[in-house]
Amino acid sequence: MSEKINILRASCPMPTLDFDVITLGHGSGGLLMNKLLDSGVFDVLKNDLLDERHDGAIFEMPAGKMAFSTDSYVVSPVFFPGGNIGELAVNGTVNDLAMCGAAAKYLSLGFILEEGLTMQAFWDILISIKHAAEKAGVKIVTGDTKVVERGKGDQIFINTSGIGSVHPRADIAMRRVKPGDKIIVSGNIATHGIAIMSVREGLEFETTIESDTCNLNHTVLALLDEFGEQVHLLRDPTRGGVASVLNEVARDAKLGVEIHQKAIPVIEEVYGACELLGLDPLYVANEGVFLAIVEAAIADDFLKKLKTLEYGEAAAIIGEVVEAHPRQVIMHSHIGGRRVVNMLVGEQLPRIC
Amino acid sequence: MSEKINILRASCPMPTLDFDVITLGHGSGGLLMNKLLDSGVFDVLKNDLLDERHDGAIFEMPAGKMAFSTDSYVVSPVFFPGGNIGELAVNGTVNDLAMCGAAAKYLSLGFILEEGLTMQAFWDILISIKHAAEKAGVKIVTGDTKVVERGKGDQIFINTSGIGSVHPRADIAMRRVKPGDKIIVSGNIATHGIAIMSVREGLEFETTIESDTCNLNHTVLALLDEFGEQVHLLRDPTRGGVASVLNEVARDAKLGVEIHQKAIPVIEEVYGACELLGLDPLYVANEGVFLAIVEAAIADDFLKKLKTLEYGEAAAIIGEVVEAHPRQVIMHSHIGGRRVVNMLVGEQLPRIC
Repeated sequence: MSEKINILRASCPMPTLDFDVITLGHGSGGLLMNKLLDSGVFDVLKNDLLDERHDGAIFEMPAGKMAFSTDSYVVSPVFFPGGNIGELAVNGTVNDLAMCGAAAKYLSLGFILEEGLTMQAFWDILISIKHAAEKAGVKIVTGDTKVVERGKGDQIFINTSGIGSVHPRADIAMRRVKPGDKIIVSGNIATHGIAIMSVREGLEFETTIESDTCNLNHTVLALLDEFGEQVHLLRDPTRGGVASVLNEVARDAKLGVEIHQKAIPVIEEVYGACELLGLDPLYVANEGVFLAIVEAAIADDFLKKLKTLEYGEAAAIIGEVVEAHPRQVIMHSHIGGRRVVNMLVGEQLPRIC
Repeated sequence: MSEKINILRASCPMPTLDFDVITLGHGSGGLLMNKLLDSGVFDVLKNDLLDERHDGAIFEMPAGKMAFSTDSYVVSPVFFPGGNIGELAVNGTVNDLAMCGAAAKYLSLGFILEEGLTMQAFWDILISIKHAAEKAGVKIVTGDTKVVERGKGDQIFINTSGIGSVHPRADIAMRRVKPGDKIIVSGNIATHGIAIMSVREGLEFETTIESDTCNLNHTVLALLDEFGEQVHLLRDPTRGGVASVLNEVARDAKLGVEIHQKAIPVIEEVYGACELLGLDPLYVANEGVFLAIVEAAIADDFLKKLKTLEYGEAAAIIGEVVEAHPRQVIMHSHIGGRRVVNMLVGEQLPRIC
């Protein structure tokens, strides 16, 4: 991570400021706030719509359906192996839109800063946001900054909301899930959660386990170009992991779900860490993985294509939708047994995103 | 306030739940979170788009320009005379869109809850959100709930982002402000800030000073129907108050601004409280007031119309844009003097919204 931040810092050095921590005055709406915005935020995130500095951004959207999504990010720690809260906040909302079959176009950005946050940390987060937005091809067009007293927040919380154009061939909805559909996961699971947990628990591995946070929009849009309406559902298994998403599918589609443990891709070290921590990878959060439920007839082609796309290399068909045992997720285990996979109860890993 | 909440509670009673405070598990993405959402949130805020329960909402927007805005709300205390953080969060974003000349249509809703928040408080906020959204005519179509540990937040923070259709005759931009334009305020100023301060400082008045939080969209849209492009700029003077907005206008339009103290409407008790607290009403936050900068020729008609509209009764022409003293705001005082009104420096009233 620190290498990534160093490269970004070099490309976008922090200006000299007459303050090095955030104070309550930076949320005042007055001079200090304008100073904070002028001295950095607007320059870093520069684009024609943001530059208007109005209470909102004004633009025209192309004709057709659009998608709208929101997420607040409260991850702790704010900097973790493989990323930080800033890029997580951009990628997370870009990915939520992608799960609607939409190409993210515009994002809003709302900061809740805790008094005492260092300007260097804020700057590092800001340049990560800029970089993530460029990578995903979205513009940050409107924003808001609030400051709360020390002890009433936790360094920084970020909300991003996003709007995007829905792919003309996308028809992604629970009602489209049907028996026989194949379930495909786009990459190794449980990596993000374990990256966060390993910092919190002070675990060391031979190689650092890094968060999988990334933008999935380009990959998803390329798949929709080719397979369109044959893609029935897309979901990103963040909080609650793969198990919770599949349980939601089983519950809402009123169908059964079967998955095959040996087909589910998990990086060996992540698997080892899960064993060590007593966690089931199926419940651990992901940030750079999606689940696709597709027409059985195209499943192999979909997988083949996905494997050639960005972040899709480790993709696998992990199961199918069935008529049997409606509302239940059943896993065929490594050793040939069958067990029910329930929805996550309680909280394994608070503040994972 | 409590009377308003009692009416809302009666119309939408809290269901019986097996938990009475929010725990970390309610932000898990798993069973507890689903329980929280099922047992209340989705029922209270019910609409066809939200009911899809996807990662985002999908809809078509009418052709033409649209506006997009975001705000996070961290007001303390969460319940205050005249309202609570829930209705503030709806009205604030609806009003930001109105300031762009847009009719708010869809809102997102992001909660950051502190572990230990009572379910009753959450419910009261939720029904206030429902009520405020109905009053403003907006739909809450997508949302997110996060929970942070006790001591890492402050009961509840809310982000709302909103999208709306820009009025076909609206052309609201800083570049349109020109010398001679009249400055109109839509109502009594400084009320929201003083309502919050009076609770914080334990001040008592003969009658309670209540926040002016309200939705300004219907009023603004009616004015745009009649005066369209002759309205040059709209701004709501929230944090930083009227003084900060007028300073932004002077700075960004590179023109002078003159205002007349005796023309500025302030409720007598609010004025008294300001004196007592050593606050200048020009810097105190508003939540139900906007500033309009309009073509001089229509100023009187605009005012006359505004006075007939919802929340416009106390409206007044308070000043004008001039060529003299560019980037400066000058106030003609009660006693005939002239003084420079600067932008707010530092922070008078943290966490006012």
